Parts: sequence; structure tokens; C-alpha cells
Amino acid sequence: MSLILNRRDLDFILYDVLRAEDLCKRAAFKDHTREVFDHVLDAAEKLANNEFYPIAKETDIKEPEFEDGNAVLPQSTHQAIKKMRDGGFFGAGFETEYGGLQLPYLITQGVSAFLSAANSGLYGYGMLTNAAANLLIAHADQEQIEKYVPPMVEGRFFGTMCLSEPQAGSSLADIRTRAEPQEDGTYRLFGNKMWISGGEHSLSENIVHLVLAKIPGSPAGVKGISLFIVPKYLVSPDGTLGPRNDVKLMGVNHKMGNRGVVNTALSFGDVDGAVGYLIGEPGAGLSYMFHMMNEARIAVGLSAATTAYSGYLHALEYSKDRRQGRSLNERDPSSEMIPIIEHGDVKRMLMQQKSYCEGGLALCLYGASLIDRFETEFDGEEKQRLHLLLEILTPIMKSWPSEFGLKANDQAIQVHGGYGYTREYPVERLYRDNRLNPIHEGTKGIQGIDLLGRKVSMKQGAALAVLEGELLSTINAAASHTEFAAQVEALRAAWIEVSSIARKMPELAAQHGRERALANASLFLDAFGHVIVAWIWLKQAIAISKADHPESFKQGKLAAFRYFFLYELPTIYPPCELVRSADATCVNAQEDWF
Amino acid sequence: MSLILNRRDLDFILYDVLRAEDLCKRAAFKDHTREVFDHVLDAAEKLANNEFYPIAKETDIKEPEFEDGNAVLPQSTHQAIKKMRDGGFFGAGFETEYGGLQLPYLITQGVSAFLSAANSGLYGYGMLTNAAANLLIAHADQEQIEKYVPPMVEGRFFGTMCLSEPQAGSSLADIRTRAEPQEDGTYRLFGNKMWISGGEHSLSENIVHLVLAKIPGSPAGVKGISLFIVPKYLVSPDGTLGPRNDVKLMGVNHKMGNRGVVNTALSFGDVDGAVGYLIGEPGAGLSYMFHMMNEARIAVGLSAATTAYSGYLHALEYSKDRRQGRSLNERDPSSEMIPIIEHGDVKRMLMQQKSYCEGGLALCLYGASLIDRFETEFDGEEKQRLHLLLEILTPIMKSWPSEFGLKANDQAIQVHGGYGYTREYPVERLYRDNRLNPIHEGTKGIQGIDLLGRKVSMKQGAALAVLEGELLSTINAAASHTEFAAQVEALRAAWIEVSSIARKMPELAAQHGRERALANASLFLDAFGHVIVAWIWLKQAIAISKADHPESFKQGKLAAFRYFFLYELPTIYPPCELVRSADATCVNAQEDWF
Repeated sequence: MSLILNRRDLDFILYDVLRAEDLCKRAAFKDHTREVFDHVLDAAEKLANNEFYPIAKETDIKEPEFEDGNAVLPQSTHQAIKKMRDGGFFGAGFETEYGGLQLPYLITQGVSAFLSAANSGLYGYGMLTNAAANLLIAHADQEQIEKYVPPMVEGRFFGTMCLSEPQAGSSLADIRTRAEPQEDGTYRLFGNKMWISGGEHSLSENIVHLVLAKIPGSPAGVKGISLFIVPKYLVSPDGTLGPRNDVKLMGVNHKMGNRGVVNTALSFGDVDGAVGYLIGEPGAGLSYMFHMMNEARIAVGLSAATTAYSGYLHALEYSKDRRQGRSLNERDPSSEMIPIIEHGDVKRMLMQQKSYCEGGLALCLYGASLIDRFETEFDGEEKQRLHLLLEILTPIMKSWPSEFGLKANDQAIQVHGGYGYTREYPVERLYRDNRLNPIHEGTKGIQGIDLLGRKVSMKQGAALAVLEGELLSTINAAASHTEFAAQVEALRAAWIEVSSIARKMPELAAQHGRERALANASLFLDAFGHVIVAWIWLKQAIAISKADHPESFKQGKLAAFRYFFLYELPTIYPPCELVRSADATCVNAQEDWF
Repeated sequence: MSLILNRRDLDFILYDVLRAEDLCKRAAFKDHTREVFDHVLDAAEKLANNEFYPIAKETDIKEPEFEDGNAVLPQSTHQAIKKMRDGGFFGAGFETEYGGLQLPYLITQGVSAFLSAANSGLYGYGMLTNAAANLLIAHADQEQIEKYVPPMVEGRFFGTMCLSEPQAGSSLADIRTRAEPQEDGTYRLFGNKMWISGGEHSLSENIVHLVLAKIPGSPAGVKGISLFIVPKYLVSPDGTLGPRNDVKLMGVNHKMGNRGVVNTALSFGDVDGAVGYLIGEPGAGLSYMFHMMNEARIAVGLSAATTAYSGYLHALEYSKDRRQGRSLNERDPSSEMIPIIEHGDVKRMLMQQKSYCEGGLALCLYGASLIDRFETEFDGEEKQRLHLLLEILTPIMKSWPSEFGLKANDQAIQVHGGYGYTREYPVERLYRDNRLNPIHEGTKGIQGIDLLGRKVSMKQGAALAVLEGELLSTINAAASHTEFAAQVEALRAAWIEVSSIARKMPELAAQHGRERALANASLFLDAFGHVIVAWIWLKQAIAISKADHPESFKQGKLAAFRYFFLYELPTIYPPCELVRSADATCVNAQEDWF
């Protein structure tokens, strides 16, 4: 049994639910077939099993250390990354013109699922490098692309995103790093950046920092933010490395988990200014960065879902091996002890985990399939529709698996009992790893405000309307499945609940002000996410009914589907009531009441 | 601002809600006054602030190590325990005849609240020693009491509880440690014990292990279990220490948190048998052990509540210091950043923590006051009533703070953002510490079955009826507070919901079998706990209305009270529906479906 990811389930989601082969009909992917996809996934599974997973304990214990201005990582990290590079994984999703394999994002997310399930920290290096290169392709000029993207596709250069500063974490409008224009058209950057994953190491030949900074004289707030390429080593026109740039490692953060990737504090311009190259237009930096952030947010969701998945599989294995107690129906104390998976409470904890991790994975892969469709769409109207769908789903894809994946990891510990609380078993590490996900790439609070304060109302509710259309189309597709009638009705009612609140938002904001109207946005985020995941579960239930899989797999899918609708979906109603009434119990509390 | 516990709040709970001074009217406590109580609490606060809290980071990092058969603890642990011993804290709750101060349990729990909030691991040594001594006083013979109790009251001997074995964690019926009777009336024990907190160290002169074992020929199951005193060093009749007993440290467990107390695997009888002394009657061991377990369960709840409390205070302090962003009503990006406590989402997270930690602390102290009343009650009928109340509340006191205190610690991290995820701030440690509490002293699953499968139906529902009487008496007391009318109605409805399910249990068990009827017992445990804590919050609301405290403290109490009724209590209904219908979605799932 795999302890990372269930390959059958991944295949089911990719091919039965999301029809990944259909992507091969699109021009961009016409050279691919399912065989190619499977081959890539096989290789990823092997890399995950043989290189990433076996060192997960070591990368947790031997966390990156700060020594003489460098970040020192375990040798095993270097080896695993080399294998990843040699396997061509850094370039899997890039167009052939950059040296990539031009695979759909959906398939590269299948690859990511294996890698992040096996070692979510280590997976960060590739994820950030991919997302940085994608930002450059979308927004940098031709010369910049030619200089930086091919070595990133090869995995020789890595990428980072440098947004936060010590005094400005979530509040990017308040960053202070400044970029002084030089006569040669370049800039010199001065400032401190915080929470930079992969900010310094010797895993790659070079590091391409993408840095938010303000050009003196820019307006206050986000409109004054520009984006710069700041390489660790300057790159000559022929691609060879020049002198080291003025970027200094100030320290590494000692994290609770997720230690497979180094997290750093960086200083730019400690000596005479870090050389930076402006991307696109001044003042548009944050909008460019959102290209990378949106990709990173979906990646966080995927990582959370797969970290939960691995925890679930560990708990499942343990529950089959560990014998303890008897059925509550058994009264003979001399009868044999049973595997704990036979206890009702353990089954419930396993089913909860299954519904969260399989639901979360399917959600993130569904999002990936939308990105492929968006990227390869020629029809402007459909492209806009897909864009809106991604806009409204991104906060859900980021935060739902982060919230409920962590709960799954919590239950994986509980299934293990005392053993799960020791470092001899991996579940406590997975729990610590996953605790990061509700924080980075926009905290849960930020995602809630993004969803309820922006996305549901954007373009007069157009994104919400597109999402509603998708949901109703699944409901219509379920009409022929009378066995799902109860769930279809429950989903319809739940959608009416959350969408009616969403539509009421402009009115609530006008009536109470945005601060109060959004005071319970985090509750709404969870509730809305539950409705979305219920919908994703309905998609899975419809797909499994038609798919060719072993009966036990089918029954398991349908049980988790029923679980989600019975045990999870009904929990949305009490918090929705608070959002609808713009309850002010908390927001009106004064500081000295606490 | 204290970062451990709010003394004003503790005083409010002890004196305004629970009327601790009234205990002085009872013969056992007649020599005490509020001044004495306050003096003891002052000393505990000082010990916690000066000795326990400052070393909490060190006891986490330098966890106990196994060296040459010994458990090596940091020197700071030795110093802190010495200060605790010198302060007389080991004996605070014991009768003067044993050398104690004969303080009410309520006041010693106030002491415990400070110590566990400051360092929950370290607090374990005193807690276990007290509970072991109490078990001896209740069930051992005079000679045993005279030999072991006074040095435990002095803190020279420590105590442990040795229940679990590697093959039998929650399933005590299946322990294999055997006790061979000797001609001199003693026993020789052979077997392995697991998860023994304080199992080996040199903090005390001796360790008194209380060990569950089976005398050969005993019946299968729990009726074959006896309880033995197995000291680390044999004790001569004059109280001096003799040779070392045959108890060997096999290893120390490397835990995720709670590292202030060593957790061990012990081997009894590796050489020629560990000398043990039978307590009471053979076969009654588990019932004796429940004396200690019940005390330990309430202690776990208190520790969970206070660990949450300390996390809350850290988050509160951080939220006042940290400036980030602006009100959502503020549109000028050049305006000054505000302390994050002014953000609605942060206020909500703080209020949630406040409602959990103050509610949990009040719950556990209420339980402590019941124990005092029980222990000092002469009227048989009232004593039985109090006994029943404690029986039904113990699983709640153990598990509610464990479940929701952990959630509070999770939110304390979230308030800190990225900083909360680093080991530079204590909140991640508190979160790791608290993760133990749903596991030890009976997992959450065990507590759920204890409540729904045993306590609510015991003696034809007598315990449930007593609890209902208490609840209704608070509801009646609230009648004059028309401002609480909505909450009173909500509590009444919630009680009807959970109590009607409880009363239906015999019928559900008969209809579906116990395994299915109890399959969702953990959900019921949380729901029932929420109703109990809502009741405790109503008690607090009534008390604060009459009490003399600053207006801000009053307003804070009432806001947390309203929060609990609006945000928390309504969440009980969806899970209750599943318990009521004995939903079989999970329990009927087959092993190969997962």
C-alpha cells in the first residue's frame, strides 16, 4: 500500500472525473496521449517514493541552518533535487520552445501531488521555480525571458517570490523596499524581505528573486508597487554567471514544520544596492505578482490536500495492523482483539479524512484543469468565463484544503493514539507541516476577505454566476441518478444559502460598512468551500458510477460522498446565519474587553 | 499583562461564580479563609511566573534523554521542582494528618491552573504524585499509607500510573503484566508498561509506581486486574530507602510536545521480578485505578484549558503590538497602519479563544468545587447526587477543553501569522503541547463511549437527571435577568436536544446494537460538551452581573458569553441529528472501501 497517494484515486480523478485525455484534442497538447501522461506520473511516483519520501524525516530533523551567511541544507536534499532535475520535472509544464515537455498543468499537478505528498517542503523549490518562470513568460520582456526562463526550465536556476517585509506581512501596500533607477535602465534595490522560501541555498546555480519594491515618487498603496528581477548572481548576455549581486541572507526561520524548504530573511542592497531589472510597467508589480501568487495559492491547496492524503494512508495502514479491544457488541473479554479499523469511531475518523483528502485533491485538480482550458482557449467569451471561474475558486482552492487537510492530519494522529504523538511515526510531522498552509500565500483571513469582499461581487456578480452555471450543470447531469436525489437537493439548498448571502454583500456593506459586513468572512469561506467540495464530491459520485473500477473502490467513493453530504455539508448553516446578519458580537468588542 | 493566566478571571471564577469562601464553612476547611486562599494563589502565581514559565522553551528543546538506563532531564527542571517542593505545593491539598495544608481541591486546582499554564509538562509530576497519593489514601491499607503518603505529600517520593502496555493501550482488559504471589504476602511483577509519565528520573528520592497487573488464575477481562504498589527503591519499615527494585527504564518516548515531563517505557521484572504490594482486594484494581484516572482526567482538562489560556494571552499581546493594514472602511493607503486587534477577523479569533479558555477553565474549576462538596458531604443522598454529577461530567471535563483548547491554540498561531509558525514565539509550542490532551488518560473516542454508552444511562439515567436539575436551577436563577432571555431559551432547547438523544440510547442500542448506536459518540461528546459549557457561560454571565469588577472586564465576559451562544452553541444540531438517527454511513463501511 502506498503511504503517499492512492494512484488509483489519482487516475480516477484525472481520467474519469476530469477527462484529462480530452486535453490532447487541444493544439497545445496534440502531441500527447494518455500513455505519455501515465509515463510521466509513473516517473513522478517513483521520484516521490524513492527520493522525496525516504528523506522526509531527515529534512524535518536536520532543518536548514544559517552558517557564515549561507543556508546549509542536508546532503540528501541536494541529491533529491538533482534527481528531480535529471528527471526533467522542472520543465514538465513549459512549452517546448523553452525546453519544456509542454504537458498540461493538470498533469504537472498530478506530478506535484506525488512530490508534495512525499515531502511538502522539498516540493516548494520546484513549485516556486515553476511559478516564477510562468510569471516571467507572462509579463517579462523577450530578453528577460530568454535569459532566465530556459535555465529555470532546466532546473539550473531557481525562483523565489519576495513580497513580505518584517513590518508588512499581509499588508503589501506598506512595503518599504525601494528601487532606485540607474542611468543604464536598471535599478538598485534597498530593503528587507521576510518569509522568503528558497531565498538562499546552493541547490541551484542561481536564484531568480522576483521582488516587489517601490520606485521613489510612486503613489502610496498598491499602485506604487513595481516588480523586479533580482538574480543572486548577475547573468551575462551569453548566459554565464557574473558577480554576486548585493543580496544577503540575514537568517533562516526556524519553523514548526515544513522544514524541507529553507525559509529566509533577505537583505537587498546592504552594500551598494542590489541590481534589479524592472518587469513590465512601473506600478503594475502587484498585478503581475498575482500571476505567481494565484499559482502558488493553488499549489498551497494541493500541498495541504496531499499532506492530508499521506496522513490518511498512514492512519489507514496503522488501523489495519494495530489490534486493540473488541466490538462493542462483543461481551466475551477472552475473545481476540480486533484491528482498530473495525471500531466505529476509527472508521468515522478514517472516512472524515478520506472525504477531506480525496475531496481536496479533486478540487485542486479540477482547478488545474480549468487553467489548462483557460490557457488554451481561443474563444474570448469562454476564456473570460474560465477566468472568472478561476478567480472565484482560487481562495477556496487555497484555503479549504489548508483548513480541512489540517483537520485530517489531526485525525490521523488520533487514529494512532499515543504513537501518533511520538516522532517515531510520521503523522505528527505531517500535522506540523500542514499547519503552515492556512498562513502562507495569504492567510485564511485574507482569503475570506478576497472571497466575500471581492470575488463574489466582482463584475456585478459575474464570477458567482459562472460558478452557479457550472454547479447547476452538474446538478442537471445528476438528474438521471435518482440514487443521488437527496444529495442533489442538499447541494441545491446549500448553494442557495451561500449564494444568497454572497448576493446580499453589497447591501450589507452599504448598510454596516465593509469592516462589519466582512467580520465573519472566514466563516463564510469555510461554508462556501464546503458547498464547493460537496459539488466536487457529486462530480466524483457521477463519475464513479460510470467508471470501470473495482467494486470496493466504487463503494468507498460513494461512502465518502454520502459522508460528506451527511456529516459535513449541514454544518454550513449556523455560521451562514452569522454572516447573513452581519453579526457584530466580535467586531464591536473593544480592545480592553479581552 | 500576564502571559500565563488572567488572575482577575481566576478570582472571578473562584469567588464570584463558585463562591470558594463558602467552603470554609465546612469542617474540613474551617481553618481557612479567603486570605489564606489568596496567599496560596499568590505563591503559585509567583512559582509559575518565576520558575515554570521561564524554562518552558528549554524543557521543550532539551527533551528528556535516555542515557545508560537513566532519564536525563535539564538542570532547570530539577531547580523548578525543588522550588515547588520547597513551597509546599505537593502537599497543598492533603489533610494535615499527612503533612498537608488541607486546602480545598478547588484552590489546589487554582494552583494547578497557574503551573500547567506556565509549563504543562512540568506540572505533570505534581499532578501524578497528588493523584497517586489520593488513590493510596482511598484504597491502600494503613501501613501502606503511612509508608508512602507522607513522603509524597512532602514531594520526596513521586507517583506514576502504570496502565498501558505496548499491546494494550486503550484496551486495559488485555494487559499481560503478571503478579506472582510470594510466600511473604508480597508479589513479583513481570511485564512491560508503556506511556508512563514520570516513569524514571532523579527529581525525587523515590518513585511510587501504581501498577495494574494480573495475578495468575484471575478471570479474563477487567475483573482479573489487580493494583500494586511497586516502588523504584524498596522502603524499609523506618522509611529509609532500601535496594533498587527490579524496574528498568527501557526508553523515553520522543513526543511532539509536552516535553517538560518525561514519558517512558518501563520493564518490570527483567531480573527476578519487581517487588509489588497488593492494594485492597485482588480483581478490584481497575476500580481503584479509576480513582486516580478520574482525577487525572480532570487534570488533563484543566491543563488543556490553561494551555489554551496562555496561548490566548500571547495572541492578545501580539495583536495589540503588531501593526498591519487598515480598517476595511479606510480607503486612504497613506493612513497609519493599525494594531491587528482592530481587525474584525482577529477580534473574532480572540473572542473564540476567550470563550474556549475561560469557559474551559470555569468548567474544570466547577468540577473541582463539586469534588470538594462531595468529599466533605455527610448527607448520603446529597453525596450520591454529587457523585453522579461528577460521573457524568468527568468525560466532558476531560475532553471538551482538550478538543476546543487545542482549537484555541490553533487560532493563537493564526493571530501571529508567519511568526506564530516559528519557534521564536511560544504559541507553536503550546499547540504541540495541547495536541496530547485528546489522547492520554482515555482518548476522545473512549470518553465518547464513556459518556454516551455508560454515563448518560447509568442507574436508569440518574446522573443525567441530576445534571438536568443543576442546569434547570441555573435557568431559573437567570429568570430575573431578562437580558439573558435569548440565551436561556437557547440553552433550554439545546439541553432538550442532547438529553433526548441520551434518553433514547437504550432504545437505539437495543435496535441497532451498541457498536452502531455508539458509532458517532465522539460527535455527541462535543455537542454535549458545548451545551455544558454554554451552561457554565450562563453561570458566569449571572455572576458577572452581580460582581464588582471593572466595566471592561464585565463587558468582555458578557461578549464572550454572547459569542458562545451565537457562534458555538448552534453548531450542535447537525451532529446531533446523526447521533439520533444512529447514522451508519461510517460504521457500515467495509475495510477495503478505504
